Parts: sequence; C-alpha cells; structure tokens
Amino acid sequence: MAFGELPEIPVGAPFTSRRALLDAGVHRQLQAGIAGGAYTGAESIVVSGGYEDDEDYGDLIVYTGQGGNDPNTGRQVADQQLTLGNAGLMKSRVEGLPVRVIRGAHPGSAFAPATGLRYDGLYYVEDAYHVIGKSGFKVWRFTLRRQDGTPPPWASVNALPPVVTLPGIKEVTVLRVIRNTAMAREVKALHDYACQVCGLRIETPVGPYAEGAHIKPLGAPHRGPDTLDNLLCLCPNHHLLFDLGAMMVADDMSLIGTAGKLRTATKHQINIDYIRYHRSRYAPESSP
Amino acid sequence: MAFGELPEIPVGAPFTSRRALLDAGVHRQLQAGIAGGAYTGAESIVVSGGYEDDEDYGDLIVYTGQGGNDPNTGRQVADQQLTLGNAGLMKSRVEGLPVRVIRGAHPGSAFAPATGLRYDGLYYVEDAYHVIGKSGFKVWRFTLRRQDGTPPPWASVNALPPVVTLPGIKEVTVLRVIRNTAMAREVKALHDYACQVCGLRIETPVGPYAEGAHIKPLGAPHRGPDTLDNLLCLCPNHHLLFDLGAMMVADDMSLIGTAGKLRTATKHQINIDYIRYHRSRYAPESSP
Repeated sequence: MAFGELPEIPVGAPFTSRRALLDAGVHRQLQAGIAGGAYTGAESIVVSGGYEDDEDYGDLIVYTGQGGNDPNTGRQVADQQLTLGNAGLMKSRVEGLPVRVIRGAHPGSAFAPATGLRYDGLYYVEDAYHVIGKSGFKVWRFTLRRQDGTPPPWASVNALPPVVTLPGIKEVTVLRVIRNTAMAREVKALHDYACQVCGLRIETPVGPYAEGAHIKPLGAPHRGPDTLDNLLCLCPNHHLLFDLGAMMVADDMSLIGTAGKLRTATKHQINIDYIRYHRSRYAPESSP
Repeated sequence: MAFGELPEIPVGAPFTSRRALLDAGVHRQLQAGIAGGAYTGAESIVVSGGYEDDEDYGDLIVYTGQGGNDPNTGRQVADQQLTLGNAGLMKSRVEGLPVRVIRGAHPGSAFAPATGLRYDGLYYVEDAYHVIGKSGFKVWRFTLRRQDGTPPPWASVNALPPVVTLPGIKEVTVLRVIRNTAMAREVKALHDYACQVCGLRIETPVGPYAEGAHIKPLGAPHRGPDTLDNLLCLCPNHHLLFDLGAMMVADDMSLIGTAGKLRTATKHQINIDYIRYHRSRYAPESSP
C-alpha cells in the first residue's frame, strides 16, 4: 500500500480516465470507489456520485460505502457489509491514515471538476457508521475531512463553516490531538496492541487499538526522533497520564505515579536517555 | 473569566500600552505576563521577551512561566513553581482552552510588532513541563500553537514547518482529535470527572481529567446539540470505544459491548433519542 501524497502528483492534477488514474498509482482500483481493505486501511477513494446518499461539502465529504447496489441502475438493493473497502475506511479511521481523494465529474457536487477526474488532496476519516439509506437498505457512511497543506483546487463556495462556529454552540476547543507515525504503528505491532502499563488491548471492529507515545516528543522544541527506542505502546488513558507527566518511568522500568513496571517486548529496546528526558520535564526533582 | 475571541478585538489590533490592553479586557493583568490561575485556566498571555528562555516561531511559541526572576534585572534567581499563571497555563492545556496571545515589541522575536502591543489571535497549549533554564534554575515552559481562523498579522517568514514534515520523520497522521465544549465541561463537573462507565477519575497536577462525549455527534451530517442530555462523561478509553461504536448504551442504561450499567447523576438526564441514534449507527441490527 502507498499512503499519503505521491511525489509526482500535485493537488489539482487532472486525469482523463480511471485507467489513467490507475496507471499513475493514484487510485489502484479500476472499478471500485475505495482502494484498500480491513488489514491495511484505504489509500484512496473516488467521489463520482455513484451513490445517492453521498454528500459533498468540499472540505468535508459524507461518503457512502460500497456494495449492495445494482451495477446497472446504481440503485441500492441490499444491505452493505463492513468488508472490503468499507472495512478499509473504518481501519483508516482507527489508525488515522490519510486518504487520497479523487473527484470525478458529476452534477451532484459543486466541487467536482467539469470533466474527467482530479486529485484533490488528503482527507482523514473522522467518522464511520451505518444508516438506513434513502433506499431503505443499510449503507455505511464515512465522514472525511480535508487536511492538506495545499489549498483545494476548487473556488471556496458553499463550504461548511469550521466546527468551531457550529450554530448554537458557544465554544468548541481542542482538548487533545493524537498523532500516529510509521514507527508508532511498528511499536504497537511489537506489543500486539497491549498497553505497556496495564496490558489492556482495546478491540474494535477492524482490529485492536493502541497509541504510540513518543517519550521525547516529536515537535519543537524537543525534536525527539520517530524511532522504536523513543516510543511506548499505551492505551489512551495511560498515554494521557504519560503526556501530562502524571506517570513516569524509572531507570529500572518501574513506574512512577502508578504501581507496577513497564511491560517489555524482546524486540523493543527503550533508550534510557529519553526516559530520563521525560522524567526531567515533570519530576519534582529536576535531576534525573 | 472570558476565554477566546473578544467580539470587538480583531486579530492584529494594536495597543499602545499594557493599560490600554487591560482596559480593553484583552489581558486583564497590568504586570503579569499570564492572566489566569489553576482553577479557571489562563485566558491570555503577553509575549514581550521578559524571559531569556522564550522562543518565538510565530505559529509556535515556547513560553516561559512566571516567577523566580529579579524584577530589576529580569534574571532568573530562583526556581519557578506550578502556581498562579503557570498553573493556569497547565490547566488550559488539560482543558484544551484557547489562550489569547498578545505580542509586545522586543528585539528577540521576528514576529513582534515594531512598537507597542498587538493581539495576534488564539493559541492552544500543546505542552507544559519544566526544564533547568539558562540560569541554572527550574523554569516552566509552555508550548503554544496558533489555531485561529484569521491569518496571522505578520509576514510568513522563518515559520516552522508543520509537524507533518518534520525532518527525518516519514509520516505523521492524525489519529484522533478530542474536543471540548462549554457543556462538556458542565457534564464533567456533574460527575466530578468520574467515567460513567468505569468510575475512573484521572488525576492531574491541576485537577481531574475526563472527556465529554457527545452521544449524537456535533459535526455534519449529524449536527447533534451541545446540551447536557446529549453528553456523557467518560475516560479516554471509554470515549474511544463509544466513538467507534464498540460500546453502546441500551434504553435501560445498561451497556452493550462491555459489562455493567451507565453511572448516572441526579442532575444529568440523558435523552433516550440520542442513545438510540448512536445505537442505530453501529448496532448489527439497525433498528433501535
């Protein structure tokens, strides 16, 4: 699988056909609207008005899953299942993976190109759930929100206001952003998604969930590395406690602020310098 | 306290003095750089180069806490404590509250105005920790990141690249964003920050932590209300399970997907329609 931006495909790149899109590696399915599955996540989708329940707000797309429709009429004739591409988009939600969005020309969207297909940048799956669609059958719906450094290739018309100004809601603030990296996925796999503090392994419909916690943070001013020896596999509760410094790790891997000892894995060696760096930021005694 | 944007103060608004800033209600402290405390959070800070350890990258500020410096020389002569404004910024981090940032003219920052003071928009506290400063004494540091709908009032020079393109790190994706609202804070207070599923009350250095989970989501296409009867008070682990639909609530408040029953509070009435809406999105049987 190839997630995220492709080096030679800028936002706004036009394609004349699904075949051209496939050849360029942008959407590696000739027919299906979703490229990907439950194990890996979905790397791209094509939004082309094939489903009557789709909604396109530009930066926000409510996308209908695949399956259950008559290929000739496009009409929904059966329930959709959480398999194939639908399970792929659910996995992308759980793992926070970027999805390339390609819009195809169709009259149902003010944001689609006039002709052909166009790469519109990276979106993230904010929500995945099912409803009874207009047809009376169960359809899966995925809310995707655009997060791309490049401005969108359409003129800014009719776009939804950001969540912060939802009508009637006074104030929405960001409490916490959980990020994921390539190495975080690796540390989670090494621990089979069990929290290194409490052993909890959270089960979701598309596999287990855990978070990779960078011991020395990635961002400025710390600039910690995205390496296995700078990562812990934690459940959300212990990730929060670790990030707030309410829980720390001693040199012998025993825990400070909570009982017990950090669970280890053979292939996961933690760098003691990062543990000390974390401790120096929060411990009442600043010396490690 | 008054958090967030002030209706009559646009981003870029200039002020000639700290007194003028105070009179306008933008920064309600005449001397202190931080307005606020542990109980409420910090509503604003003034960045004016008073501390030798400050770092200003425009959209990202590494801000030094208050205290322990000689008022005449500005030199650090003692350890800083997690009290007063420092505890306020820590609380803002835990609660995800917006902080108004005002820059004052000083030579140490490429982003400060040439003269006077300027309101630069809303920032969020991403990180709060202590280090041994250049002086050899303990100083608190707060990393604030700008998140404001209005573009910044300075020319885009020297700005840090976004986290996604950190050098040497292949890929950073957003796994989860936890938001906070006025009513979420209320539901958490009603349950004294104890999770309605497991009873856990997470303790932090500035008080307890919990998350308000909207049963019918706020965003499009659901547009659920930010009201008490549409909220649950949950720990991060159970918030995740609820948002993924791996845990649901039955009409009699018993839990589906995990054992037990939802804990209730006298003043917190849950609307059964929202519980059913949530169930309809994830339950194998779509009918509520």
